[in-house]
Amino acid sequence: MSIVVLGTVALDDVATPSGKRREMLGGSAAHFAMSARLFTSVHLVAVVGKDFPAKHIGLLRNKGLILDSLVKAGGRTFRWQGRYSGDLNTAITLNTELGVLSSFRPFISEGERLIKHIFLANVDPDIQRHLLAGMRSPELVGLDSMNYWIKHKRRSLLQLLKKVDIYVANDQEARLLSGEHNLVAAARYLCNLGPKMVLVKKGEHGVLFYGNNVLFSLPAYPVEKVVDPTGAGDTFAGGFMGYLSKAKKIDAASIKRALAYGTVAASFNVEGFGLERTARLTAGDLKRRLKKFKSYF
Amino acid sequence: MSIVVLGTVALDDVATPSGKRREMLGGSAAHFAMSARLFTSVHLVAVVGKDFPAKHIGLLRNKGLILDSLVKAGGRTFRWQGRYSGDLNTAITLNTELGVLSSFRPFISEGERLIKHIFLANVDPDIQRHLLAGMRSPELVGLDSMNYWIKHKRRSLLQLLKKVDIYVANDQEARLLSGEHNLVAAARYLCNLGPKMVLVKKGEHGVLFYGNNVLFSLPAYPVEKVVDPTGAGDTFAGGFMGYLSKAKKIDAASIKRALAYGTVAASFNVEGFGLERTARLTAGDLKRRLKKFKSYF
Repeated sequence: MSIVVLGTVALDDVATPSGKRREMLGGSAAHFAMSARLFTSVHLVAVVGKDFPAKHIGLLRNKGLILDSLVKAGGRTFRWQGRYSGDLNTAITLNTELGVLSSFRPFISEGERLIKHIFLANVDPDIQRHLLAGMRSPELVGLDSMNYWIKHKRRSLLQLLKKVDIYVANDQEARLLSGEHNLVAAARYLCNLGPKMVLVKKGEHGVLFYGNNVLFSLPAYPVEKVVDPTGAGDTFAGGFMGYLSKAKKIDAASIKRALAYGTVAASFNVEGFGLERTARLTAGDLKRRLKKFKSYF
Repeated sequence: MSIVVLGTVALDDVATPSGKRREMLGGSAAHFAMSARLFTSVHLVAVVGKDFPAKHIGLLRNKGLILDSLVKAGGRTFRWQGRYSGDLNTAITLNTELGVLSSFRPFISEGERLIKHIFLANVDPDIQRHLLAGMRSPELVGLDSMNYWIKHKRRSLLQLLKKVDIYVANDQEARLLSGEHNLVAAARYLCNLGPKMVLVKKGEHGVLFYGNNVLFSLPAYPVEKVVDPTGAGDTFAGGFMGYLSKAKKIDAASIKRALAYGTVAASFNVEGFGLERTARLTAGDLKRRLKKFKSYF
């Protein structure tokens, strides 16, 4: 099965205790795709500006991503500037420049509209709804969002939640949208808003899954040297959705395995800046670490 | 195998979002013992004051704990007053009254000195060293401490660490004593101070185990309604040490199972104030929840 991912492709300036990078390839869709590609063919739906370096396009293409709907618009690429201090758990956003994102309406080919597995990575919920409305026969739809949209486009997000199967949130977002501090209670609440499954990503503390009265809880893969956590959540979602997209059926066993693959993919992501580590990743690397991960509990 | 636990037996005043309790039976040794009793016979070594209610002694005795070395001294029982706000992860200490603890030197019978499994629950490290020095043939020694002793009796604690097999710390304590923020790095550092095994308790985020270049990481048991987390760490240690004390050998499999038992015991502890829930707990309850816990990952 192929998968369509809509989201951002960005130029990131990031500073962490391990160093700095400028105009690094990033964005929610790019991180998702770099992880999901290890399981399935990935169609990347996003917009970049005229300033977007050809080498980044080259990298995405070389990694086997299908770029038919990666459009180049007049204007500057979406940019994010952030830093992490000592605990590496929370990003501090220094600046966001929407650029070409501000007028983006995804347009995809008739062929891509037929793809049944879709991930709406973090981007304005109105853009997410626009894409989803054009899909002909969605079967498995995942959604990610962020605090900003929960605060400023709550209504649009709530409508969208009714139409998706999987909602992926981090702990802060889950608490903000549900009003529940306890994460099990929050996940249950969010599940009642529409999605069949809710994933609460807790960063270095792992992930909580809730769906159909079933609960799963996995620790993170212990990484001793975190270089840059940017995109770890999207990388997680890419591994999770990628595996599920390939799995023959969606049941407790395949969901657990998908969660473990997401965890392991995210652990590689944090070991390098941006996509540095995941771009080199192979399915073999992922399998070997999965085995090690399973020995940890 | 029997186990000797040294620590505090306290009167706790606790306020949480679920309510308040006054002069509730608590303390590190009491919480440890209430959990370890489900695996092995537990000898409680502690001191209480003249004000200690007979009903509390009755409860401890009824639960099968061996109280030969629970001494009553002139003065007031050790008291702790604390509260938890919304997130229930961090206790705010309002007041501590040492009372009889300030002059406590544990004195135990010749028979108890022969017991090979020992847990030094949180109390002044000088008291812990005093007890350990009197044990005839320790085979498995666990140690817990707290921020206060790490700051004020670091030297004494470091000497003690050389003589124990297992060091149990929460994440803050592990960071404080090691100077490492990353918990894997912290656990590795602490292991180099003497103990063969280090357990880092992360509260609602589970536990990290490091020993002999082996790493385990378990999530917490997801509890939707946390009533009072007081004593959860000691309850965890009681389940962990209790199971290991009973196990035929200490290897990867038995350590993992011990960690799971500790996790599950702690999950019951937080469901009630103080010892309310764990005092009613049976080995059957523990086994049933262990099975459920294992289905979560």
